[in-house]
This record gives sequence, C-alpha cells and structure tokens, in this order.
Amino acid sequence: MADVAAPLRVSAQKLEAFIARALQAVEISEREAKCIAELMVRADVQGSEGHGVFRLPQYIRRIQGGAVNVKPGIRVAREAAAMALVDGDNGMGHLVMRYATERAIEKAKTAGVAWVGAKWSNHAGPASLYATMPLEHDMIGLYLAVGNANHLPPWGGLDMLLSTNPIAVAIPAGEEPAIVLDMATTVAAYGKVKTKAQRGETMPEGWMMDREGRPLTDPRRANEGFLLPIGGYKGYGLALVIGLLAGTLNGAAMGKDVVDFNADDVTATNTGHVIVAINVEAFQPVAEFKKNVDALIRDIRASRRLPGVDRVRLPGEGSHAARADRLKNGVPLPAPLAAALKELAAELKIAPLKLR
Amino acid sequence: MADVAAPLRVSAQKLEAFIARALQAVEISEREAKCIAELMVRADVQGSEGHGVFRLPQYIRRIQGGAVNVKPGIRVAREAAAMALVDGDNGMGHLVMRYATERAIEKAKTAGVAWVGAKWSNHAGPASLYATMPLEHDMIGLYLAVGNANHLPPWGGLDMLLSTNPIAVAIPAGEEPAIVLDMATTVAAYGKVKTKAQRGETMPEGWMMDREGRPLTDPRRANEGFLLPIGGYKGYGLALVIGLLAGTLNGAAMGKDVVDFNADDVTATNTGHVIVAINVEAFQPVAEFKKNVDALIRDIRASRRLPGVDRVRLPGEGSHAARADRLKNGVPLPAPLAAALKELAAELKIAPLKLR
Repeated sequence: MADVAAPLRVSAQKLEAFIARALQAVEISEREAKCIAELMVRADVQGSEGHGVFRLPQYIRRIQGGAVNVKPGIRVAREAAAMALVDGDNGMGHLVMRYATERAIEKAKTAGVAWVGAKWSNHAGPASLYATMPLEHDMIGLYLAVGNANHLPPWGGLDMLLSTNPIAVAIPAGEEPAIVLDMATTVAAYGKVKTKAQRGETMPEGWMMDREGRPLTDPRRANEGFLLPIGGYKGYGLALVIGLLAGTLNGAAMGKDVVDFNADDVTATNTGHVIVAINVEAFQPVAEFKKNVDALIRDIRASRRLPGVDRVRLPGEGSHAARADRLKNGVPLPAPLAAALKELAAELKIAPLKLR
Repeated sequence: MADVAAPLRVSAQKLEAFIARALQAVEISEREAKCIAELMVRADVQGSEGHGVFRLPQYIRRIQGGAVNVKPGIRVAREAAAMALVDGDNGMGHLVMRYATERAIEKAKTAGVAWVGAKWSNHAGPASLYATMPLEHDMIGLYLAVGNANHLPPWGGLDMLLSTNPIAVAIPAGEEPAIVLDMATTVAAYGKVKTKAQRGETMPEGWMMDREGRPLTDPRRANEGFLLPIGGYKGYGLALVIGLLAGTLNGAAMGKDVVDFNADDVTATNTGHVIVAINVEAFQPVAEFKKNVDALIRDIRASRRLPGVDRVRLPGEGSHAARADRLKNGVPLPAPLAAALKELAAELKIAPLKLR
C-alpha cells in the first residue's frame, strides 16, 4: 500500500530535461541549459532541496527581469600560476562556478594548489557542488561564497551587513565515502526559517533573535529579527572573513552592496565565490593519504557514544544516503513545488514535467 | 595610588631577553632562541597570554625530556609552484612556522597564492602570529593547525579524537587596523577552563558537557567531560576538516595520534599546520582593496546596536588594543607566573627576569 502522504518522486533524468527546457525557453543555449540543469538536479539528488529545482521559478523570474545575463562571456580576468579571477559576466552562477572549478583543477595539477575567485556571478546552488568536483582528480576542494541576502548583523549590531556566507570542504577517502562538509556560518539557514513558517512550526531558541536581543521563535515574525551566527562572535568573524575572501577580494558584492535576490528580480547581484583545489599528490602519495583518511573515518564511526545517540556521523553522510536513495527511487517533489513547476511550464509554453 | 591587585608589568624587551636566555640554556642557538622569544613575546603583547611566556616552563620541560629537537634541520620536503611541505625536524613550532610563512610569502609574490603545510612541528603559539605575517607584504594570511591535545569528541561521540583546531585569517586594511580573526573551533579553549578552575569560578553552560550529555559547569571536573564545538555538528565538522588539512594532508598527527603535550614531556607531537598567503595585488590594485576593506569596517562599526551594547567590534580589535597598551606599559605578569619564571631561572642557572 502506497503512503499517501509521501510526495511524488520524479527521476533525475526527467527533472533535468525539464529544467533544461525551461532555461532554453528564456534564451539560454542548449549546452549551457543542460549544464545548469545537471548541477541543479545534482543538488536535489544529494538532498540540498532548497538549492535545486525549487529555485527554478526564481531563476526564471530574475532572467525575465533582466537581472541575469543569458549569453555571458565568462572569462579569466586575471591570472597567475596558482590563482585566477574569473569574471562571470553576470551569467548563471552554475556556469561561472563550473568554469572556475575547472580552471582550479587544471592549475592545481602543476601548481599543487590553485585558488580561483569569481566576480559578477550569481547564486550557484549548494556550496558542496563545487567543493566535490576536485574529488575525482584526487584533489581536496574548498569553496567559499557570499550569500545572496543579508540576514546577519555584526555581533552586537542590528544592521544586516552579512549573509550566511557558507563554506564547503570535500576530502577524498579510499574505501570510505568522501568527507563533505557544507555549512552556513549561521545556526540555521534562512530557508529553514521559511520552511518552519510554511509548516506552522516554531523555531528552537538560538536560530534567531529580535531587535531587542530576545530569542525569536515564531518564524512568521522572521522579518522582525535576524539570524544568529554559530558560536556567537566566532561565527560573525567567520561570516565576515569568508565574505572578504569571496566578495571583496574578487571585486564582488559584500556588506551593504549585497542584493537580496529573493526580493529583487531586476538587479545584478555581482555574487563572489572562491574555489580552491588542493592536489593531494603534491603533499604525499594519494594512496597513503586515502588510507589515513579511511582510518580516521573508521575511528570516528567506532567512537563510543553519548546516551541516546544511535551513530556517530561524518560530514556528508546525509548527502551520500540521499544520493543513493534518489538515484534509485527518484527525487521527491512536494505538491506545492509540483504545482509551481506546472504553472511555469504553462507560462513558458514548454512541455510540463511528466510525473508518471 | 597604585592598584595593589594589578599584576606587575614587565617590558617586552626584558621579557624577550629572559626567554632567549632560558632557551639558550637548553642548547638552542642564540639566533633561534631570539626568534622564538620574539614571537612568544609578540603573543603576550597582543594579549594571547595563554600562548606566550606562560608556556615557557612547559617548553623547557619538554626540551629537557627530549620531546623537542633543539638543533632542527628545518627544510622544504616537497614543493610545487604554489605549495610547499615543510619538514620541521621536530624543532620548536615558532621556528618551523616562521620558516613556512616566509616560504609562503615568497611563493605568493609570483604565484599569487601559496599554500605551505608543515609536519614534524610543535606548538607554535597563537594562530594569529603567522596569519598576520603576510600583512606587511599586502597579503592576506590564513592559518590552520591541529591542536596539541584532544578535548573534543566527534558530534554525538565520547572518544576524544579531535582538538580545538584553530583557524586564523588576517586581512589588510588601509587607514583602519587589519581584521584579524583567531578562533578555536570549540566554544571555549581548554586554557579558559583551566583559568576558571584556578579562580574557583564556574563555567557557563555550553562550554563543556559530561559523558552523560549533561552540561558541565564545574571546571574542577573538566576531566569528566569534554569541550563543545561551536554550532554543534558544524563546529565538529570544522575541527575535523581543519585537522585533515593541517594534519593528515601534511603527514602530521591527527585523530588518535595526537599527543597531549600538557601531560607528556617525552614524545614528539608531529604537529601539523598550514599557512596560506594570498597576494592581494594578483586580484586587484592593493589601494582599491584596502579602500573597500576600510569602508566595510566603517559600515560595521557604525551599525545600529542591540540594547546594552556599547560598540560593535571587528575581529582583532582586542589584540590591537592590548598591543597599544602593553608596548607602552609593559606585559602584565601574574604573581604565580612570576614565581614560576623565578624558579625556572634558578633551575637553569640564568639571570632572572628583572621586574623593576
């Protein structure tokens, strides 16, 4: 008997084809539409729902509003042996960051490590998409970005000068799955607050604070407060330096120049990111490194546990499990999202997503 | 009238000369003893008391125990255009990391960015010592290290497999002081717990947890529990990936191989660190970058504030203020530390630290 409450599932292939159709309908080339669609679905498949097809209507709206360039000339604006600065020409962030990551991997083959920044980019999906790309080259990936809406004031302040600026680090293992950390520097990402509001739930204390410094737990009142950084002033410091490295250093938006891309469909965001590729082979034989990572993973997994804890997890375990499930059983598509995509198909006059 | 409760102050010069005498007494060369002393006092001057002269008796004890090599042949073991792996030959961490940072700065001049790892190093003082060295070359510094004692289990676990693995990032500004973030990935560093115990104070909830998962607030019971990471599983993830980058990748100790250097005077720690130098000029004109950092600093400082907050601070403000005070008025020397240094002088048969 089917669980009537479970959302419909759709295969990654169908979802990818639909996204590509939608992007082509707003004048993105077939090749680039397919590239973006592949990365967006990769986000859904790994369980980063807030960064996959969920964003499609917003991306299309911003393209239609003229905020994003559908024919970008993405190029290396500056370069040295171990670095490059990519000018994304305001193209879709996925295209810019795939290009930047490919440059980083190529450079790290000879330089050992390569740091590639990007400016005039856009929202590019989950941080781990790019941090994990170097893995298949036996490289470590490190990704930083300026978030696309400021919901975080400096510690003790009220002005929203910072975003949830994320960091992702992906580290190859041998027989064990790769370690993939992907985290916002705030306790909760803003998307989680929105989900709580949709479900009529309250937030735990510690996610948000109101303008008087009191805990804010009603997500419907989210606009009366702000997100809290992890570890108090430490998370504020992390969000700040990530923003300086991914934004300011690249000549991208940071601080009061950050555009709220949820509220604005017409302004270029000049989003900044960084991808660092670290070639393991430059430091030690790859096999030796992977053996040591495997041993550490096993020590962690075998750790004695706090009462009530069923298992000790490694960063990335959740996404590895989601991937295994979704590649086999399809990507869950909640009813409101399915309806939004149907509407989008009608508006763009493209074949709708076939759910069966 | 003098404040009788205030500790004595000693000039940085006198303190430096004393430390150098002590290190020479245990067979470290004059040149290297002076280099270490200068960096240790720099820690005291910037207010990182737990990492300055406070550590001298322990360093001497470990040298006398044979745990540290006083005549190291520090060298580059592997290298490429943008990276190097320094083998510290078990020398004092300060020497190893000064050497590594100089290599990183030199390489970043041409490569744009340089990532230098170190293995067979030792405790090197506060993270910000090395992150700030690239500043005078108009470079950004980023430092990571494996801590020298495991007080952190993986999230949900009980086995102490992780340390407080710190990160420091220093970013040059123009007219404003540099932004200097220097933080452990745990809510409190273990040194703070020890200080609370010495003073007979209780710890706030959130610093430590006992083995049943209950808050631990009595610092005298610290060995019955463990430190908590910032942001729960996020801080665990950060401590883990910092340890992989600074330890495992460099062939340095990580996980169960970490030696507790507070409890052990005879075993080499094989401490691992990373220093990254990022040459601002490779990305954009230095003057432009500094102007933008200044503007961001001023926007943050001018932010409206939460009730009861006197000012909004930038990372590094505390250390800049301490430096200004201590270069003028001397480094405060609490009575127990003064006594310990007097005892050390007698034991080493060197001229004691002159406090007047």
